Amino acid sequence: MKKEKLYFASDYQEGAHPRILKRLEETNLIQSPGYGTDNICESARERIRIACGCPEAAVHFLVGGTQTNATVIDALLRAYEGVIAPDSGHISLHEAGAVEAGGHKVLSIPHQLGKITAEAVEACCKVYEEDLNHEHMVKPGMVYISQPTEYGTLYSLSELTAMSEVCRRKKMPLYVDGARLAYALACEKNDVTLEDLARLCDVFYIGGTKCGAMLGEAVVIPEPELLPHFFTIMKQHGALLAKGRMLGIQFDVLFEDGLYGTIGKTALAAADKIRLCLDSNGYKLAFDSPTNQIFVSLGEEAYDRLSQLVEFSFWEKAANGRTIVRLATSWATTEEDVEKLMAALEIIKRR
Amino acid sequence: MKKEKLYFASDYQEGAHPRILKRLEETNLIQSPGYGTDNICESARERIRIACGCPEAAVHFLVGGTQTNATVIDALLRAYEGVIAPDSGHISLHEAGAVEAGGHKVLSIPHQLGKITAEAVEACCKVYEEDLNHEHMVKPGMVYISQPTEYGTLYSLSELTAMSEVCRRKKMPLYVDGARLAYALACEKNDVTLEDLARLCDVFYIGGTKCGAMLGEAVVIPEPELLPHFFTIMKQHGALLAKGRMLGIQFDVLFEDGLYGTIGKTALAAADKIRLCLDSNGYKLAFDSPTNQIFVSLGEEAYDRLSQLVEFSFWEKAANGRTIVRLATSWATTEEDVEKLMAALEIIKRR
Amino acid sequence: MKKEKLYFASDYQEGAHPRILKRLEETNLIQSPGYGTDNICESARERIRIACGCPEAAVHFLVGGTQTNATVIDALLRAYEGVIAPDSGHISLHEAGAVEAGGHKVLSIPHQLGKITAEAVEACCKVYEEDLNHEHMVKPGMVYISQPTEYGTLYSLSELTAMSEVCRRKKMPLYVDGARLAYALACEKNDVTLEDLARLCDVFYIGGTKCGAMLGEAVVIPEPELLPHFFTIMKQHGALLAKGRMLGIQFDVLFEDGLYGTIGKTALAAADKIRLCLDSNGYKLAFDSPTNQIFVSLGEEAYDRLSQLVEFSFWEKAANGRTIVRLATSWATTEEDVEKLMAALEIIKRR
Amino acid sequence: MKKEKLYFASDYQEGAHPRILKRLEETNLIQSPGYGTDNICESARERIRIACGCPEAAVHFLVGGTQTNATVIDALLRAYEGVIAPDSGHISLHEAGAVEAGGHKVLSIPHQLGKITAEAVEACCKVYEEDLNHEHMVKPGMVYISQPTEYGTLYSLSELTAMSEVCRRKKMPLYVDGARLAYALACEKNDVTLEDLARLCDVFYIGGTKCGAMLGEAVVIPEPELLPHFFTIMKQHGALLAKGRMLGIQFDVLFEDGLYGTIGKTALAAADKIRLCLDSNGYKLAFDSPTNQIFVSLGEEAYDRLSQLVEFSFWEKAANGRTIVRLATSWATTEEDVEKLMAALEIIKRR
Repeated sequence: MKKEKLYFASDYQEGAHPRILKRLEETNLIQSPGYGTDNICESARERIRIACGCPEAAVHFLVGGTQTNATVIDALLRAYEGVIAPDSGHISLHEAGAVEAGGHKVLSIPHQLGKITAEAVEACCKVYEEDLNHEHMVKPGMVYISQPTEYGTLYSLSELTAMSEVCRRKKMPLYVDGARLAYALACEKNDVTLEDLARLCDVFYIGGTKCGAMLGEAVVIPEPELLPHFFTIMKQHGALLAKGRMLGIQFDVLFEDGLYGTIGKTALAAADKIRLCLDSNGYKLAFDSPTNQIFVSLGEEAYDRLSQLVEFSFWEKAANGRTIVRLATSWATTEEDVEKLMAALEIIKRR
Repeated sequence: MKKEKLYFASDYQEGAHPRILKRLEETNLIQSPGYGTDNICESARERIRIACGCPEAAVHFLVGGTQTNATVIDALLRAYEGVIAPDSGHISLHEAGAVEAGGHKVLSIPHQLGKITAEAVEACCKVYEEDLNHEHMVKPGMVYISQPTEYGTLYSLSELTAMSEVCRRKKMPLYVDGARLAYALACEKNDVTLEDLARLCDVFYIGGTKCGAMLGEAVVIPEPELLPHFFTIMKQHGALLAKGRMLGIQFDVLFEDGLYGTIGKTALAAADKIRLCLDSNGYKLAFDSPTNQIFVSLGEEAYDRLSQLVEFSFWEKAANGRTIVRLATSWATTEEDVEKLMAALEIIKRR
Repeated sequence: MKKEKLYFASDYQEGAHPRILKRLEETNLIQSPGYGTDNICESARERIRIACGCPEAAVHFLVGGTQTNATVIDALLRAYEGVIAPDSGHISLHEAGAVEAGGHKVLSIPHQLGKITAEAVEACCKVYEEDLNHEHMVKPGMVYISQPTEYGTLYSLSELTAMSEVCRRKKMPLYVDGARLAYALACEKNDVTLEDLARLCDVFYIGGTKCGAMLGEAVVIPEPELLPHFFTIMKQHGALLAKGRMLGIQFDVLFEDGLYGTIGKTALAAADKIRLCLDSNGYKLAFDSPTNQIFVSLGEEAYDRLSQLVEFSFWEKAANGRTIVRLATSWATTEEDVEKLMAALEIIKRR
Repeated sequence: MKKEKLYFASDYQEGAHPRILKRLEETNLIQSPGYGTDNICESARERIRIACGCPEAAVHFLVGGTQTNATVIDALLRAYEGVIAPDSGHISLHEAGAVEAGGHKVLSIPHQLGKITAEAVEACCKVYEEDLNHEHMVKPGMVYISQPTEYGTLYSLSELTAMSEVCRRKKMPLYVDGARLAYALACEKNDVTLEDLARLCDVFYIGGTKCGAMLGEAVVIPEPELLPHFFTIMKQHGALLAKGRMLGIQFDVLFEDGLYGTIGKTALAAADKIRLCLDSNGYKLAFDSPTNQIFVSLGEEAYDRLSQLVEFSFWEKAANGRTIVRLATSWATTEEDVEKLMAALEIIKRR
């Protein structure tokens, strides 16, 4: 084994899918208007609308996930409203308080493997409604979930349908963060399509950054009148890219020939192999999840050894003193690196 | 028993202590400058400084508790910081998201009878510090607790000292919400004085509204350089009263002849009697707390009957279907009303 | 002349109208629910609705002007909108950025003696509409004016009608700050009634603090569905008084027997006398305004001498080195003090 | 002439400098950690520090100008402070209220050709300081200017030095928006170097988006302790790019071999030619400015004709009914297009 470390720290450690680079080159000196008003953006929008079966949808391109979440949530909520989210949600923990900086409370609900249930959302609303002092409280104004979740788990179609029903009954928009959506769409265990998302959510975003794009996220608003002046709200949030076509190019390529639907396959196959290897070598998976993220619970010694060979992500300190780490595969993960990783994992256990 | 209902819903259901009214009359046509720059405010400030053993303290008068909390917390925190608070805290639940409206996250910790421990605060900081991604997270920037708590419980001097030590070690200001402070100070079980608060906290407020004033809260900042430009921050929060002397009068009277230290005694004696009566009649106290709030768990029938006779506060729905209600006594509670309440409580149980 | 200074610094230098004090005493130990849900508040609301000829109006009581402005403006605007206001407006200059702290831009228009015209508002909208980049700009979302203005001037009925028409055409709510409204209503030159305000504005507030109340402002929303959840928004802004009846009492008295309509008369008569005296003694009025504020331009010597005898307000440094100061009369100004002031003014000029 | 329109609407209508594209390709599959912690970002930072003669500077990469301005300004100001800026400044007009959304007032000063003077800034501070009510006002907390300005004009070294001196005397950070900085650096009339900026400003940003990068802006903080936790503040503002190296690549290329210092030359030469052509054909330049933006005042007919041939930017409606439009050249402007534009301009005038 070489001295160089293996990179399994995240799904944004490489550049862009080669077809995107190619398109960037082909279009580089074409002159086009700014702020997403160009033809490439329009083409990308149209492809996304078709993929979502949603010809009337508004589609906006933003640069990154935290920015997208903060902008959409701020646009959806009125001042007196908060956003229901799993306590493990990205907005709850790892966005440095971006939602609160916009003036809104995250009403967090305990997660189960990254997910919350329609029942829990309904119960949260009920507590609010039944509290005779609820006019002194933040009103639940929308629901935020992610697909796949931060734990790599998936909402099933029936779970998402139930969530959508509660949200519509309570007149709360349902917003799905799809930062890693490609890894859900390509997963055998997934039964939620883009069309389902467009039908069941009020807003969702299709992640680019972690799914083969150089950067970019595509916000889909199936019924655009829900969010008037969203362009200006983007601008106010610093989320409107001057050279918008850069984002259009990403998604125009990703939604050509169904690329987005399959780009996650390599990552999922690699993750499955790694999970199997971990299991057969006696590692303890911290959570069971079917997509491109793998969570392993490591004792101190294994942690130290693995650190020397592999770049991974710190996830959390477990109560028992062990450390939970995350290995992530991506569209760009190579067979070779997977083999090397598995070899490393075996060696560490054997000692 | 008369048809009229008994009022035990809160400690702000009457007007002001008669001595305050008298002072309002005596001073009514005296002309004085605005915004708390008048002589009465200055006198009140000086009395508070003396009572707190803190001659250098800055003292500011604000109108209400939510306003005071929002203003102080916004002044203390930098953009990237949040406030650690019990999940039962007033700022966590019943201020309609005022802290978040100011851009800050409430980092809530599970409470025990309204309190949090120094250890829990330290653990919360440790989770932040040990998380390798903590630069993506809200930094714990201060601690908010209340004395007495929303559950009527008290921090002991040793608990408060421990909290103060953690806060100073972590360089986080400690802020105490004293909305009902008079009911702590007059309580036999309390061993925390105003001087202790001034020594152990970085900011605290002495509650007026619920403690005999017509309205008003007095913020004490033992080391004023902690919060430069607080006057302007108050103005920006709409918390600067033009006719500031109205607030000065409240506290000048409350801190004359030690009134604030004793004004809670009637309420505490009444609460003790009511708790005894509840106990001897087989009611279930929801929490054990020694100050002027009494929390009773009622079944549906008892709830309905008591509602017909007494104004009380809804507290929360218990998991078992029972309702927890709060009875509050105050400086103005009369013997007569206490007797009537106890009679009503007996009758309901006897049926 | 006594050594003591004369107070003409503001219209909030005394306490409350004696009838208010009396009512405070009469009701002091009556027990009532909090947050403005009591009978006195309800009575005050009803009186205001009648006085405004507006039986369906929502009426809310807040504590002070800056708080009221910040709360109403935040409630009326969406994130991408700003508030058009005269550059001399209280929200533009003297509220320490409270509107901006709520996330909104004040779109200021040059004033003429404190006023802006319907044409100027329309022109401001036109600039926005015609700017092809206006999606990158703050959208004019409402109009803020005050009656009387910060310069003591008045909008005539025809001016206000024109403003209302522009606002309705542009679908922007019109909000009138009536901090000193009593001094408009009692002025001979005024032709705008409370009913006119209720008919032409979308929200306005009736000032208490400067008009005989101990404290308090009454927000009137003729069509309440314009601002759903305003109660919660007030709470979030720290603008919901626990002991709400204190505010109800102020307005219940002020709107009994038409007191609010006449309480300004003394102040106006006094101001007229003082203006005449100034004029006949060769002082230079900085602006011509008919209500209870008097603006005098003083050279250095006159400024110094007057300062020794009279408390007044600094207004602004004029370009020519002179200082503009404000004298204000109020409902509580006495004949005796007016005589003394006029004597002082004469003496200063004679030397 | 072809039917296709000429593009002179902006300096962000093409992609990236070819050397950047090349580097993107070369590095595409290299794996690197996120959030700007990779080697390429580090190399870019080091090159910028060297170019600025500022070995200790912190350098952060953000995506766009509005985002950068909002993040830096929010980080620099305390709650009670505002930012002094020309009324023509980007933050004053064309960022959809992003500064206000962060809670701060833009204290705008009338511009002269996009610039403000040190004297005007000092006068603005003096008005604040001399106003006896200034504790009720927003405190000037920093100064924002741009180089070149929105009008394409330049601050001279002596002007910038004077500004810096005022700022330091008043203890207000000076922040320079360098969205188009390359077009200043390459301009013969410019005497302000990167080293001067680093010496005279407290924060400035080196524009990438409009200066040859695909996207990105580099914030330079000569004394990093001025802005602790800036990384977290970026995250909170949605301004932290996961795949940070994309930004590092832009600046690593732009600061290799002095490219950034010369990349503007083509644009400036083209702009000079166009200005000469406009002049000799009797067009009226709206403002005289030496960089890559050209402002022409057009009557209705000329406007219509030019619109059919050329994409340009709307600037503003002039009082006299004429329209001021902006033509911008860029690093990518071709000789051929300049010739075509000049031909078009001639034809229009000749008719």
